[in-house]
Amino acid sequence: MRLPKGFVASGVEAGIKKGRVDLAMFYAPEGANAAAIFTTNRFKAAPVILAREGLQKSSGRVSAVLINAGCANAMTGKKGLDAARRIRKNLAGIIECDTQEVFLASTGTIGIPLPETLILQALPAAINSLSTSGLDSASKAILTTDTGTKVASAHFMWKGKRGTITGVAKGAGMIHPNMATMLVFIMTDAPATHKFLKIAIKQASDKSFHAISVDGDTSTNDTVLIMASGKLGGNQMTDVKDSPEFCDALTKVCRSLAYMIVRDGEGASRVMEIQIEGALSNKEAKLAAHAVATSPLVKTALHGGDPNWGRIMAAVGRSGARFIADRTSLKVGNMLMVKQGEPTAYSEERAASIFAKERVSVIVNLGSGHGTASIMTCDIGHNYVSLNAEYRT
Amino acid sequence: MRLPKGFVASGVEAGIKKGRVDLAMFYAPEGANAAAIFTTNRFKAAPVILAREGLQKSSGRVSAVLINAGCANAMTGKKGLDAARRIRKNLAGIIECDTQEVFLASTGTIGIPLPETLILQALPAAINSLSTSGLDSASKAILTTDTGTKVASAHFMWKGKRGTITGVAKGAGMIHPNMATMLVFIMTDAPATHKFLKIAIKQASDKSFHAISVDGDTSTNDTVLIMASGKLGGNQMTDVKDSPEFCDALTKVCRSLAYMIVRDGEGASRVMEIQIEGALSNKEAKLAAHAVATSPLVKTALHGGDPNWGRIMAAVGRSGARFIADRTSLKVGNMLMVKQGEPTAYSEERAASIFAKERVSVIVNLGSGHGTASIMTCDIGHNYVSLNAEYRT
Repeated sequence: MRLPKGFVASGVEAGIKKGRVDLAMFYAPEGANAAAIFTTNRFKAAPVILAREGLQKSSGRVSAVLINAGCANAMTGKKGLDAARRIRKNLAGIIECDTQEVFLASTGTIGIPLPETLILQALPAAINSLSTSGLDSASKAILTTDTGTKVASAHFMWKGKRGTITGVAKGAGMIHPNMATMLVFIMTDAPATHKFLKIAIKQASDKSFHAISVDGDTSTNDTVLIMASGKLGGNQMTDVKDSPEFCDALTKVCRSLAYMIVRDGEGASRVMEIQIEGALSNKEAKLAAHAVATSPLVKTALHGGDPNWGRIMAAVGRSGARFIADRTSLKVGNMLMVKQGEPTAYSEERAASIFAKERVSVIVNLGSGHGTASIMTCDIGHNYVSLNAEYRT
Repeated sequence: MRLPKGFVASGVEAGIKKGRVDLAMFYAPEGANAAAIFTTNRFKAAPVILAREGLQKSSGRVSAVLINAGCANAMTGKKGLDAARRIRKNLAGIIECDTQEVFLASTGTIGIPLPETLILQALPAAINSLSTSGLDSASKAILTTDTGTKVASAHFMWKGKRGTITGVAKGAGMIHPNMATMLVFIMTDAPATHKFLKIAIKQASDKSFHAISVDGDTSTNDTVLIMASGKLGGNQMTDVKDSPEFCDALTKVCRSLAYMIVRDGEGASRVMEIQIEGALSNKEAKLAAHAVATSPLVKTALHGGDPNWGRIMAAVGRSGARFIADRTSLKVGNMLMVKQGEPTAYSEERAASIFAKERVSVIVNLGSGHGTASIMTCDIGHNYVSLNAEYRT
């Protein structure tokens, strides 16, 4: 896949993770307007602190993005911040841009020192390898326990011209609404302002990255960044209401990446799409959806392809959402399994075949109001345990 | 272990779970004062609905308790309620007590019909086998995926006489604060009133059953019942403040049973005791404790004996509790691993040896106030996945 006009990328081996690319760079030679969403975790990693600060000081401008895998640089205190600052300054010096326009991101183990020397030594190679076809290497370099790269692209029309949005993501563990070690970098040639991007990425994230859960854990490093080079030309995009095509394309890219992240959740083999309807409010619907999405009993049943709907309803029941039990219903795929709080005379065989699929859709209606919410989650299987019990050691 | 005076028990094979005892009975021939705590899940199982109603109508009196394993009788609608009512009426008829004084409990799969005929057929055997030494069979008959029985006993002094409290529990899956498919039956010879028991069991549960989590799921069937035969004699116990010895003994029994439940969590091999200190309030401390206790990343690291403290702090960071990151500290066992938000120069070897133990104690200080909370949790391992992905099938 090609990058939108105005961007180049690279992925090189810095030696942090042996035998694979582990340092990625995205570069907009003429700069880009940008907006980002960061983790809500109170322990924010050093790169998150710097990136947020830099974006404010540069009034939403980004020239270069540098991402390392293998170390989160989180809970590393002043030393971690200083190391990140030196890397940022060094990179800004070589490419001759403002320090605040260098955007850093890290992913990996928490609490270990950033391998600063390795990264500094690899900077020239990262810069020399920058190219318009560097997306592939960059998308590999940001991965941790992901089993494959995550890239999505969509087109939109603006003032008679065809623009491009391309996003790359890294997911796997610690994925949860309000984010996780989920890194997403989206580039577009749209002539969009910082303010426009801020609203557009918020809207698209609410429908994608904020509606997925792998394990209920929100990481210290989550970052979604969008950059617009403006190379498409035409009038500036300033109001999302005037650019429905761009917003739709952006949502499409974000939803594709979100699905890839859930589908590639650590050790995951299936995805469940949970829709809650008929709640007293959207907030209560969200409570119910999250309870189902994070229930280890639901997630292990999903892993086993077991149509154990009782666990789904039990999770809804303890979620805190209010409803009358005998007004509830449950639809899985296109089969009604619970009606008025009681199981229907459904076919066990058909239920088993629906649950054997790679993608299972679940709709719970609480019969109490008009609140709705939806969330995507994946199963918890043996590979999840293996990856997480043995990670680090 | 012997039952307190005034109680007999039995456990028989009703044929619900092939080849093992699956129907338990506790009986107080002269009745008992009682109090109970039930699940907060909005989908309440039929036996929970009847037991709660019966306890109200009988003004806190219980004569017989009948518990079946193999079927939860939850989300079974009117049919399930009717089946439970017939069993209750039948049992009351045979032992000649008020219907409302028969207390039912069930555990097993949700949404399948109660095997009413099997239970009715087994009632005479359950009644005929009642004996003062029947605790052992009864404690076996209530188990589902538990690997062993859970019984605890303690003594107390009251007006110069030595009384007994004996409790029996069933745990394994769906264990979480505000309960889970956790069934607990506690018997004592204390001359305690219904009101006294209500307060005493609430206080003891807050320090035990409400401070454990296996998988974050609260079941449709949770029940903690305490019954007092009064056979010890002496003045009536009416105020918990006058009976500190009884309350201590009761807390001891409840804590022992709670520990056994967590230790025997589905597939569990280790227990983590999480203590949060220095929070802005007890409520925020609880948020942080729950986030750690339910984090699949923490629970799988615990399984692997991996001192991956970053996951503990990351869970605290996303919990919603407010604090300043660089005022936090983490102590595991007697070793300080994080101080002022940064890792100390701890010995990896010592950390590994602490995490290799069967019981790991974790204290997180948020450095922000005086709020505290504690919770016990267990690991998630391959056996948890196997049990829950293959349960039912």
